[in-house]
Amino acid sequence: MNKRLLLAKRPDGLPDSDTWSLEEAPIPEPKEGEFVVQQHYISLDPAMRGWLREQRSYIPPVQIGEVMRAGSVGQVVTSKNPTFEVGSYVAGWGGVQQYIATDGAGWYPVDPSLAPLPTYIGALGMPGMTAYFGLLDVGKAKEGDTVLVSGAAGAVGSVVGQIAAIKGCQVVGIAGGPEKCTYLVEELGFDSAIDYKNDDIREGMKRTCPNGVDVYFDNVGGDILDAALTRIRRGARIVICGAISQYNTTSAIKGPSNYLSLLVNRASMTGFVVMDYSKRYKEAALAMGQWMAQGKLKSREDIYKGIENFHETFLRLFSGQKLGKLVLNVLEEDG
Amino acid sequence: MNKRLLLAKRPDGLPDSDTWSLEEAPIPEPKEGEFVVQQHYISLDPAMRGWLREQRSYIPPVQIGEVMRAGSVGQVVTSKNPTFEVGSYVAGWGGVQQYIATDGAGWYPVDPSLAPLPTYIGALGMPGMTAYFGLLDVGKAKEGDTVLVSGAAGAVGSVVGQIAAIKGCQVVGIAGGPEKCTYLVEELGFDSAIDYKNDDIREGMKRTCPNGVDVYFDNVGGDILDAALTRIRRGARIVICGAISQYNTTSAIKGPSNYLSLLVNRASMTGFVVMDYSKRYKEAALAMGQWMAQGKLKSREDIYKGIENFHETFLRLFSGQKLGKLVLNVLEEDG
Repeated sequence: MNKRLLLAKRPDGLPDSDTWSLEEAPIPEPKEGEFVVQQHYISLDPAMRGWLREQRSYIPPVQIGEVMRAGSVGQVVTSKNPTFEVGSYVAGWGGVQQYIATDGAGWYPVDPSLAPLPTYIGALGMPGMTAYFGLLDVGKAKEGDTVLVSGAAGAVGSVVGQIAAIKGCQVVGIAGGPEKCTYLVEELGFDSAIDYKNDDIREGMKRTCPNGVDVYFDNVGGDILDAALTRIRRGARIVICGAISQYNTTSAIKGPSNYLSLLVNRASMTGFVVMDYSKRYKEAALAMGQWMAQGKLKSREDIYKGIENFHETFLRLFSGQKLGKLVLNVLEEDG
Repeated sequence: MNKRLLLAKRPDGLPDSDTWSLEEAPIPEPKEGEFVVQQHYISLDPAMRGWLREQRSYIPPVQIGEVMRAGSVGQVVTSKNPTFEVGSYVAGWGGVQQYIATDGAGWYPVDPSLAPLPTYIGALGMPGMTAYFGLLDVGKAKEGDTVLVSGAAGAVGSVVGQIAAIKGCQVVGIAGGPEKCTYLVEELGFDSAIDYKNDDIREGMKRTCPNGVDVYFDNVGGDILDAALTRIRRGARIVICGAISQYNTTSAIKGPSNYLSLLVNRASMTGFVVMDYSKRYKEAALAMGQWMAQGKLKSREDIYKGIENFHETFLRLFSGQKLGKLVLNVLEEDG
C-alpha cells in the first residue's frame, strides 16, 4: 500500500495533529510515459508553512484533501518512460507519500555514489540552491564582505555561511543554543556565532561585526531582522529568504521598524524565490558538488523515520530541535 | 543686520516654537577667497526633521546653537573670490539666515533668466535631483511600468510623477485632499490620483493600479507603504526616499508589516541619498531644464515670507497645507 499524508484543514498558528490526515491507497501504476517512484526521503522546510495558507503567493496553496507538497528523493520502481529506468534514483516534488506516479516533469536523476540520497534534498537540493543564488546573485557577496546569516545551523543558513567562507567573506552565524553555535564555528568554518537564545542579539552583532554588515541573509525576520538593520554598512544588501519567526503568528506580522536604515545606508532589501533560478541549477550543483568533493562544503541532515511522524518532525523546524537539514524517511517505519 | 535662525533645543515629536531661536548678527564680511550671499529663498524639506535628531545618519545632525541647515538660493553681494562675481546668483547650503560668507564649496551659479530663483531649490534643485535619480536610477522605471508615488503633490513627488509620465509610464499619485488630486491629474499629467485623506487607500490602489505596481516611490512610510506592498508586481522596485508619516513620532517607527511581499514578488526595497549622485547632477539638470523648456515638466513653489515665520511654515510640511515645493523668502518681511 501507499501511505499518503493529506492536508485535512488549514491551521491557525502552529499546525496541530489535525492539520494532516494519513491515508492508505493502492500503489499507483504508471500510465504510458509515466514511471513510479518509491520515495525514500522527503524534505521538511519552513516554506511548507506558507503553502498551507489560502492566499496569493509564489505557488498555489496546497488544497484540502491534496497530498502535502514536499521535495523528495527516491528510486524508480516501475516505468513506462524510457528516460527514467527502473532502479535509477530521482529527485523531484513527490509530496509526503511513499509512492508517486509521474510523467517526469520537474524530476531529475541523482547519483547516490556521489553523495548520499538525503543530500540531494539538502545541500545539493532546494536548500543548497536557495543558499547559492540568494547569497551570490541576490546578495552579491564578494571577497572581504562581512556576511551575517540567521537560521545559520539550518538547511539553507549552513550552506550560505560555508559558501560565504569559500568566497573569502567574514562569516557570522546566528543560531539557537551553544551546541549549534559551536557547530557553526568548529565544524562549518564560520568566523563567529551569536546564540540568540542566550546572547543579547545587538551586543552579539556589535561584537562579531565591529565594522558592520555587508550582506545579511535573513531566514527568520522579526527582532533579528530589526537588529541587523541597525548594523548594516553603506550599500548593504539584505536578502529576504524567509521569516520563520513569523510563520505561525496569528497576529499581524512584525514589520522591520528599523527599515529607514536602508535609506541612511543606501541599502537594499530584496526577496527572491529559488525556483526562478531553475535554469541555472546545474551551475550551482556543479560548483557545490566540487566544493563537497574538496571537503570545503559539508552537508548535514537530521533524519527522522516514519511518515506517521510527519507532524512531530515538522514542528522541529519551528522549535529548533534539529541540526542541519530536516529530512523524513517515509519508507521505513519508526524504531 | 543678518537675521539667523539657530537650533535652540532638540524637539520631541513635532517641533514647537522653542525648537529654534532667531538672533541678529552683523552682516558677515568676506575673507580672502570668500564671498557673501544675500539669501532670497530657503528650501523647506521633510529631511530637515531628521537633521534635528542626535543620531548617526547620512549627514551629521545640526548642533544646538548652530544655524539651521537649509538649501538656499541668493545673490552675491560682496566678493573676494574671482569665481563668484558680485551680482551673480548662486545656490547652495546657506542655512536659515539672510546672509552667509562662504568660500564657495558646494555652491554653484544659477541663471534667473532661465528659471525663477525658487525653481533652483525646487525642481532644478535637490528635490528635482532626488526625483530624477530615485525614479530612474534606483527605481529603474521604464516605459510601460506602473509607477505609484506618495507625497505626490510635494516637491519630490510631483517631479517623480512628471518624469515617469515623460518616460511613458502609467502614473498614479497619492496626495491629501481633492484639490491636490485634481492638480496632479489636470495640471501635472498624472493618469490618476488617490486621496489618502478621503479614499480607502487599498481600494484606491486596486482601482488605479489594476495590474499592480512596478515602481513605488515612497515619501511617506507607514500605512501607505504597507498598502503599496500588497499591490506590487513581480520584480517591483520600492524606492525609499523618506517616511514623512513617521518623522515626528515619539513612539517606535512603524515597520512595513507586509514586507514579505518582497519575497513572494521577488521585489526590492532600496534606500538612497541624493548627495551620492552629486557627480551626475549636471546630467539631471540638463534633462530637466529641457523638459521644462518643452513644457513637459512643471515646477510649482508655494512661497511664504519672513524668516520669523520659519516655524509655522515648516509645520506645513507635516500638515500638508501647501502645494508643491515649500519655500521661504527670508529676505522680505511678511505682509
